[in-house]
Amino acid sequence: MVSKAENNNLTLRPHFKTHQSLIIGDWFKKFGINSITVSSIKMAKYFAENGWNDITVAFPVNIREIAEINKLAQKINLNILITSDTIIQFLNDNLKMTVGVFIKIDTGYHRSGIEVEETDAIDNLINKIELSKVLSFKGFLTHDGHTYHAKSVEEINDIHNLTIKKLSKLKKRYINKYKNIIISIGDTPSCSISNNFTDIDEIRPGNFVFYDFMQANLGSCSINKIAVALACPVVDINAKRNEIVIYGGAVHLSKEFIMDSNNNKNFGLVVEFLNNGWSEPINGTYLYSLSQEHGIIKTTKNFLSKIKIGDIVGILPVHSCLTANLMKSYTSFENIEIDHL
Amino acid sequence: MVSKAENNNLTLRPHFKTHQSLIIGDWFKKFGINSITVSSIKMAKYFAENGWNDITVAFPVNIREIAEINKLAQKINLNILITSDTIIQFLNDNLKMTVGVFIKIDTGYHRSGIEVEETDAIDNLINKIELSKVLSFKGFLTHDGHTYHAKSVEEINDIHNLTIKKLSKLKKRYINKYKNIIISIGDTPSCSISNNFTDIDEIRPGNFVFYDFMQANLGSCSINKIAVALACPVVDINAKRNEIVIYGGAVHLSKEFIMDSNNNKNFGLVVEFLNNGWSEPINGTYLYSLSQEHGIIKTTKNFLSKIKIGDIVGILPVHSCLTANLMKSYTSFENIEIDHL
Repeated sequence: MVSKAENNNLTLRPHFKTHQSLIIGDWFKKFGINSITVSSIKMAKYFAENGWNDITVAFPVNIREIAEINKLAQKINLNILITSDTIIQFLNDNLKMTVGVFIKIDTGYHRSGIEVEETDAIDNLINKIELSKVLSFKGFLTHDGHTYHAKSVEEINDIHNLTIKKLSKLKKRYINKYKNIIISIGDTPSCSISNNFTDIDEIRPGNFVFYDFMQANLGSCSINKIAVALACPVVDINAKRNEIVIYGGAVHLSKEFIMDSNNNKNFGLVVEFLNNGWSEPINGTYLYSLSQEHGIIKTTKNFLSKIKIGDIVGILPVHSCLTANLMKSYTSFENIEIDHL
Repeated sequence: MVSKAENNNLTLRPHFKTHQSLIIGDWFKKFGINSITVSSIKMAKYFAENGWNDITVAFPVNIREIAEINKLAQKINLNILITSDTIIQFLNDNLKMTVGVFIKIDTGYHRSGIEVEETDAIDNLINKIELSKVLSFKGFLTHDGHTYHAKSVEEINDIHNLTIKKLSKLKKRYINKYKNIIISIGDTPSCSISNNFTDIDEIRPGNFVFYDFMQANLGSCSINKIAVALACPVVDINAKRNEIVIYGGAVHLSKEFIMDSNNNKNFGLVVEFLNNGWSEPINGTYLYSLSQEHGIIKTTKNFLSKIKIGDIVGILPVHSCLTANLMKSYTSFENIEIDHL
């Protein structure tokens, strides 16, 4: 991702909501990364207290957190998102320090933000930001989360290319007045797959740090790029049903699943741990059911014959962000304990 | 649930995996509850360190936790589950104190345990438990988790009544030899709905402490029995789409959903907070999408007209156990902070 950003003249401002880790953050520093994205004030605080001083909170302002926002703004270069003039008014009344603001633009995901075509509404916000004594206009920020619903790499490219076109048009409208305007895009599928970054200034992918089964399924990465696995003790075996019961449930993995071509829910791929990594996913084997603490793996007679109670199997999670958030720490193959907020 | 247990001559050994709270545990003590169920050694430890001394861990033994199991067995009356002779052998070799054991019986859920009809396998396990110096046979324990897939209260009753029949037969087979044998059942839907507990000695429901949208949807409770809600700040409003964006996502609620009759995912019901509780669910309003930190509520023009950025709305979670586990604490309407493991 660092090379892709360099090759395309982009600032890589990685989203740290996936790993939420100071140690992993340090790995990014070695690649020259010094500006980051987070999705909550709590995360911003965690990283700000540990040496990160250029942070964008890519989440609509929660005005109930204004005290924390003021504290952060005093300490670091903080960027926040603006989605309405209600927020601008509130910030004018309550913010004690200048913060950078991006206008959240909706290019098709329809989660939050101003639709990219609503230039009157955008003009209105920019004018109000201009008038504000505490808001410094940075540019436009969007997140194409609808790429996660795409059925193919082509569809991801189509979504992304359409977004690029819309954002190019938006940039042209404002570039003369705002020479340093930043166009920032976010989703890991587009950033992984595409090489078209016309008129884009900044990318904010996060999930690529680990990837996961969902990203592999979308075509963002190959399975062997998945860099996090949940280590699950085998606690029961049902030879009749070719099933392995693991200590690994919804409180460890989340309940995110992928519907396979046979309409079965798949809660994760199963791997064997090796000395310094793990195997390819085991053939004919997947996590087919999750309750609070239990997971049930459907497998083959062949794999079952190798497994005994007390063994550890690996699960490549469907959604690494949620799994990491539930587990709250990692262990590397060098036996280093890695923090998570 | 206390009355139901009393009326049917049952021991209520509530499952504490839903609330995982010492303060809420104390509320149970006032009702005379002194024996509990948990689903992990970690939970057993939490409650054992805080005055609970009769705990069943209703999860297959994870042999990698033997050191903790030994510590617990020294401190409290600990019951564990046996699902295979591998586990018995391991415990014979590694357990330093006597523990109570239940044989995990599968009455149709097919998650773990010995199928209720496999009496030879059950005889074999009992014989091995008899020979063991560290295992004390308590009885049979089952969990009808398949009631959660039922489409009606009738279907839950059918599943439950069939289980009762199977367990009665099992009890008759062993009662002469084991006068104090305990037949223990678990799921909240059956325990909530049924009044048939023939030959049952113990019930272990847990979710009923809060209930949730899933239980209401199953018919285990009415909506107004749901006793936990997530307080979510409103961070954006989209009047065009009648949508409210809340700070409340998959890291707060989990990704459990209910598929409604129109094939829409419903991630939670929406309520307004009142002075000492909350309203009925808002008409035509539901949590229709969740990402890591965002939730999107679909609503009506009418409700939208009452809502502004910075307000708090309540979400009645689909699965209260997972939401509580993610949030890690509660606040009561008396403004008491309530712990969660």
